[in-house]
Amino acid sequence: MTKEFFTATPVNQVFDHISEFARVGDEKLPTAEACGRILARDVFAQTSLPGFARATMDGYAVRAAATFGASESSPAYLEIIGTVQMGMAAQTPVGHGQAAAIATGGMLPEGADAVVMIEHAARLDETALEVYKSVAPGANVVAADEDVAAGRKVLDAGSRIRPQEMGLMAALGMETIRVFKKPVIGIISTGDELVEIGQNPAPGQIRDVNTYSLAGCVTQGGGIARTYGIVADRLDALRHTCTRALSETDMVLISGGSSVGTRDLTLEVIESLPDSQILCHGIPIRPGKPTILAKTGQKAFWGLPGQIASAMVVFDRIVAAFVGHISGNALSYRQYDRIPAVLTRNLASVQGRTDYVRARILEHQGRFYAEPILGPSGLIRTLVAADGLIEIDMNTEGLEKGETVFVTLLR
Amino acid sequence: MTKEFFTATPVNQVFDHISEFARVGDEKLPTAEACGRILARDVFAQTSLPGFARATMDGYAVRAAATFGASESSPAYLEIIGTVQMGMAAQTPVGHGQAAAIATGGMLPEGADAVVMIEHAARLDETALEVYKSVAPGANVVAADEDVAAGRKVLDAGSRIRPQEMGLMAALGMETIRVFKKPVIGIISTGDELVEIGQNPAPGQIRDVNTYSLAGCVTQGGGIARTYGIVADRLDALRHTCTRALSETDMVLISGGSSVGTRDLTLEVIESLPDSQILCHGIPIRPGKPTILAKTGQKAFWGLPGQIASAMVVFDRIVAAFVGHISGNALSYRQYDRIPAVLTRNLASVQGRTDYVRARILEHQGRFYAEPILGPSGLIRTLVAADGLIEIDMNTEGLEKGETVFVTLLR
Repeated sequence: MTKEFFTATPVNQVFDHISEFARVGDEKLPTAEACGRILARDVFAQTSLPGFARATMDGYAVRAAATFGASESSPAYLEIIGTVQMGMAAQTPVGHGQAAAIATGGMLPEGADAVVMIEHAARLDETALEVYKSVAPGANVVAADEDVAAGRKVLDAGSRIRPQEMGLMAALGMETIRVFKKPVIGIISTGDELVEIGQNPAPGQIRDVNTYSLAGCVTQGGGIARTYGIVADRLDALRHTCTRALSETDMVLISGGSSVGTRDLTLEVIESLPDSQILCHGIPIRPGKPTILAKTGQKAFWGLPGQIASAMVVFDRIVAAFVGHISGNALSYRQYDRIPAVLTRNLASVQGRTDYVRARILEHQGRFYAEPILGPSGLIRTLVAADGLIEIDMNTEGLEKGETVFVTLLR
Repeated sequence: MTKEFFTATPVNQVFDHISEFARVGDEKLPTAEACGRILARDVFAQTSLPGFARATMDGYAVRAAATFGASESSPAYLEIIGTVQMGMAAQTPVGHGQAAAIATGGMLPEGADAVVMIEHAARLDETALEVYKSVAPGANVVAADEDVAAGRKVLDAGSRIRPQEMGLMAALGMETIRVFKKPVIGIISTGDELVEIGQNPAPGQIRDVNTYSLAGCVTQGGGIARTYGIVADRLDALRHTCTRALSETDMVLISGGSSVGTRDLTLEVIESLPDSQILCHGIPIRPGKPTILAKTGQKAFWGLPGQIASAMVVFDRIVAAFVGHISGNALSYRQYDRIPAVLTRNLASVQGRTDYVRARILEHQGRFYAEPILGPSGLIRTLVAADGLIEIDMNTEGLEKGETVFVTLLR
């Protein structure tokens, strides 16, 4: 029955399915708590920033024209008419031949169009100022709308909020903002050999590593992990837990043994669920070939390999982009978030398959080197030792020692 | 009074002070909640992993010697003595000339030392197996201690816990772990021109951007931000809030106007605090020159520039490493977390000063380009547009268009 489905989907075509899945809803959040969240609405500037012309240096606010031609040997002489208080508009306008003392951040008085740096002037007495250097109009000043002009779109919905975006929204007076909710991702482990991590495994048993690693992946990917523990390798039990998880979460990950039997069982469960469709059954990647992607209602349902390194690589390289999409993230994969490094040994691959090779990054005399870490994908230590993944394209037969490769970091 | 202090400390010497500051304490946490936290103790393996020899392929557990010489034209014939159940030790040992069906992850029966892949064998009937390819001892098997050998140190105190480290600790049966607490970082804004973000600024006033941006930086750096709002530019008020913040947090950041007056005030506050010592007064970097670092008791006390871009760059390039240190992070700055890119224009600098230039990263035909974003450091949009920072070393006079530069990412 399942054989006919097993036409593997190349990895780039898997991503074509991303847009088929619904985004999560949004919520209102205090701006101070928004770091790392995804903006749900475009942000338009209600006001210009900084909102008034400001000094960028300590010195004297002047009309630039009054300083033209000034030099060490032939200073300009100006009348000091007062001091600009921080946080207040100047009391008196600055006329030609006049100056007002001003600190960095102070508001330029009416009439002034430049600031002479304190180093380029000398105060002779209470009211007399010598200026040794001419300034152009606009010198040492930011204009009222130089940071942001009112009405402009300043942030796009779907962008991730970093500290600087928090600052911008604070500057615009936004105390709360609309962000996408964090998607809840259900995690199910299946396999008769699994025991809870608090138990002592009997011979032939192993602890349920995948629930923990995948929960970490989900957290790191901006989601909330909801774990459903270990489910026995039986249709009724698995279907029951999957149905519950699909109703309680926004996406479900099952990681099961990578044996043919478990794969068939996952397929059977999917086929038994209402409104369910298998989109990918097998992806020509290594590790991770037996990956299954189905759509149940509007939700993605993943059958991940049981081998821990396979499950984590598939999450990092494929599932994370889907989590990003349903999280509202318009740019769920930063293309440049990978570094070039010199390969330290030959790596074999085969055409028609995309390989992800775990690698350690070494630095030597300012260059980065990628040292492949080889080993079966059931070994967790290979991932613990890894700083990132080297991708070998499906049209490439392998990579040679000394070549420059791109390493995407495993954070 | 303050002039005598103003001997700037080169940026590399600032880092020499890191170890003078005390680390925060530790706490016990469920392993499932430990993603991103810092390990407080070395982790030793109490058991070997996987703990028993496991099949890495679906197939037949055999004694390798019984397959030697087998080929398509001259298969080896073995007797099938049963099937290994997942999660259980095999009932019967495998003798020479015998085989047991086994799935990926199954426990190798006593006597067997290799697995013949299902593709390389044909089952003739209930008990007869034809093997078309010889296997070496150990083929398609992971040894009982191949992932981790009991007694070995597997993780170092001070390392950051990623999903793979969570998985490793789960595999070792650790339900809880000791991690460093998140340090609490106090944030104080000072400046008479500042108003709360919910207020409408009068002419000359601006909203308190720094509290929000720095809170984001602290969150991103693994700390907990505690904000103290806006404090007036007066000694008594500032000393009162600083004293309170120092007693309630693990590190304090004041960001004030970058005018000389505010700097002097910050210095006065520091000098008035008991057990207080100024370590750096001015750092030859741009932006960020007026930065002050003091030590009060065991805690770091920072005077950051008031200009938002300056404050954020100083946090990212300098303060973050100190936050990392007190957080227990042994590697608070991943040196390779920066990418080489081709500079799109000349950048001037001066010797003796380290410049951090905000930059956008563009990708064109597989190469990365760094496009400097210039503008006064009071503009928040320059940081919003930036993907990272280009560092111009203090011994360099500038960088030329077409040169390859390293860009550290602003996440």
